[in-house]
Amino acid sequence: MVGPERDKHWMHLAIEQAHKGIMTCSPNPPVGAVIVKEEKLLGVGWHQQAGRPHAEREAIANALDHYTPEDLKGATIYVTLEPCSTQGRTPPCTAGIVDAGITRVVYGSTDPNLLHAGAAEKILQAANIQVSTDVCKDECDRLIRAFSKVQQTSMPWVILKSAISLDGSTTRPPGEGQWLSSPESREIVHQLRNQVDAIITGGNTARIDNPSLTLRSKKVISKNQPWRMVITQGKKTDLPTDLKLFNDSHADRTLVQENGDITSALKNLADRGCNSVLVEAGGGLMAAFLEQQLADELVIFYAPLITGGVDIGFGNCTPKVELVEQQYTKIGNDVMLRAVVKRHKKTSDPQTVSP
Amino acid sequence: MVGPERDKHWMHLAIEQAHKGIMTCSPNPPVGAVIVKEEKLLGVGWHQQAGRPHAEREAIANALDHYTPEDLKGATIYVTLEPCSTQGRTPPCTAGIVDAGITRVVYGSTDPNLLHAGAAEKILQAANIQVSTDVCKDECDRLIRAFSKVQQTSMPWVILKSAISLDGSTTRPPGEGQWLSSPESREIVHQLRNQVDAIITGGNTARIDNPSLTLRSKKVISKNQPWRMVITQGKKTDLPTDLKLFNDSHADRTLVQENGDITSALKNLADRGCNSVLVEAGGGLMAAFLEQQLADELVIFYAPLITGGVDIGFGNCTPKVELVEQQYTKIGNDVMLRAVVKRHKKTSDPQTVSP
Repeated sequence: MVGPERDKHWMHLAIEQAHKGIMTCSPNPPVGAVIVKEEKLLGVGWHQQAGRPHAEREAIANALDHYTPEDLKGATIYVTLEPCSTQGRTPPCTAGIVDAGITRVVYGSTDPNLLHAGAAEKILQAANIQVSTDVCKDECDRLIRAFSKVQQTSMPWVILKSAISLDGSTTRPPGEGQWLSSPESREIVHQLRNQVDAIITGGNTARIDNPSLTLRSKKVISKNQPWRMVITQGKKTDLPTDLKLFNDSHADRTLVQENGDITSALKNLADRGCNSVLVEAGGGLMAAFLEQQLADELVIFYAPLITGGVDIGFGNCTPKVELVEQQYTKIGNDVMLRAVVKRHKKTSDPQTVSP
Repeated sequence: MVGPERDKHWMHLAIEQAHKGIMTCSPNPPVGAVIVKEEKLLGVGWHQQAGRPHAEREAIANALDHYTPEDLKGATIYVTLEPCSTQGRTPPCTAGIVDAGITRVVYGSTDPNLLHAGAAEKILQAANIQVSTDVCKDECDRLIRAFSKVQQTSMPWVILKSAISLDGSTTRPPGEGQWLSSPESREIVHQLRNQVDAIITGGNTARIDNPSLTLRSKKVISKNQPWRMVITQGKKTDLPTDLKLFNDSHADRTLVQENGDITSALKNLADRGCNSVLVEAGGGLMAAFLEQQLADELVIFYAPLITGGVDIGFGNCTPKVELVEQQYTKIGNDVMLRAVVKRHKKTSDPQTVSP
């Protein structure tokens, strides 16, 4: 492999590493790193949890498990995100890289915090380390898009999840059972819950379905219960006190936002360290997220049937919404569409929500 | 390969042959045949057009282009459909097989005409020919399902085609251009037109879109213009006389069904030799096909956007419709779902249609 192809190859390995932290690293972004010398992989690392070492230090430690400090001198480190250059809960990675004698740093994304962006490049170059940036930038940026959004807007990345039938319904008619999509699709939803920091539902859904919004994926991982946020059009006191959300063992992880105020709900969650939230709600609340341009991503399970029902799901949404970066995956009898909402210019007046 | 696996292997080759005739063979069914002796392929054939030789005779002729009549003796013929045993426009294939000295016949589907079903097996066995039936039966039956339906019910196989958005709309809002689905999906629709004997639309669609319903696939094939049938709720004289359907070079291929009578429209088309029809219409007429249980298959292009419009597409359909045999294919930015309508017991009163 020649230069750019070789860099992409190793960066893809770093991206793979980053994915390992995707369910546990929040509020930090997922980051992966690999250390390579003379085409030989010396070490790998990923950021596992806030407060624990960053990916670069994990990779250096991993390399030193098998090689001598002398072996690392002159190596290249590939890291998905620009190394941190300031003292946080852990010492700056730029210092660790310099200390290890690494002589080339290749990274994908620039630090989304505009105060730090590009700082590592300068520090490393001043230490005579060669720096290459923007390698596999799109894939690396995608990995941290929730973190980036919070950094830049103080609002979390919002994923709307829904199943829809051919007649545009997001639910089965009353009396026909709760689920529109297949068991395989519902397992994917549980995996999605593992990847977010909060789950939002609407007051009506809370009343009608009495959901628990807990983590029940078959892929068991050690992760805290995400925040559970009920956005209700009225007052908290209007909600039934016997809802599971208020009484189960995670009752201290349930929040209520009154007056259908989505913006306040999201700000509240961002303040609590949430980078990403999953909305599992009816058509009214989902439409409000779209109309107020507060949704970033849609995860849709196309269920191959006509319900013959009256629920109109996304038919509640009056503006046109275009989607980009479509990814389709066959899940059981359904097809899952994952796509990003195309940004248009913001409307001046946020509208009220009908959850 | 051992016996059953070997038979499946050669039958798949016969099925491939059958597919070659799929756009041109109607009102006959697509049939393919291959001749094999001692694991060696001697000849292949498919039925190209009504009045021309059947697949078995094509395969024998193809074998004799390269081999002697002596070589064919003791061979096996694999054919997707039970060979015909009666004199039609062409002499019976059973006789051709006996005359060629073939000693084993393997077929997939039994003749769907109940008067002839199984007749070939008896004739061939009486001539000391070994017969194996039902090899790859499901795939072979699928190949001729339109033909089988007409044979058994005197009604054609009906395919409803539509694009739908996430909000269940089948059209863009007024003023936003005609197409919901991608250019790639529209090319697939043109290929579908190549595969059917008639295209049905509704009176309203004829008025609003003034479609030509002609063959415009980039995959050019020599095929007659399918019948074009407008099902209107009122009288023929209510339709504008300047519609393309009434004035273009295929005007003699346009039919009108009055009073929204779908059953009469389909019977009329079956009488004209149509095995399969494609419905390209609005939600009202499509719902009527489903409600009257006159639709066999759906071809749906999922368009990844929310139109914010008011059209409700399949939301016009009141009974629940379940789909089976789902096949999903990514087409441009869309996903195409092709699926068969699950049959429930028929309602007693056919309802009227609102096209």
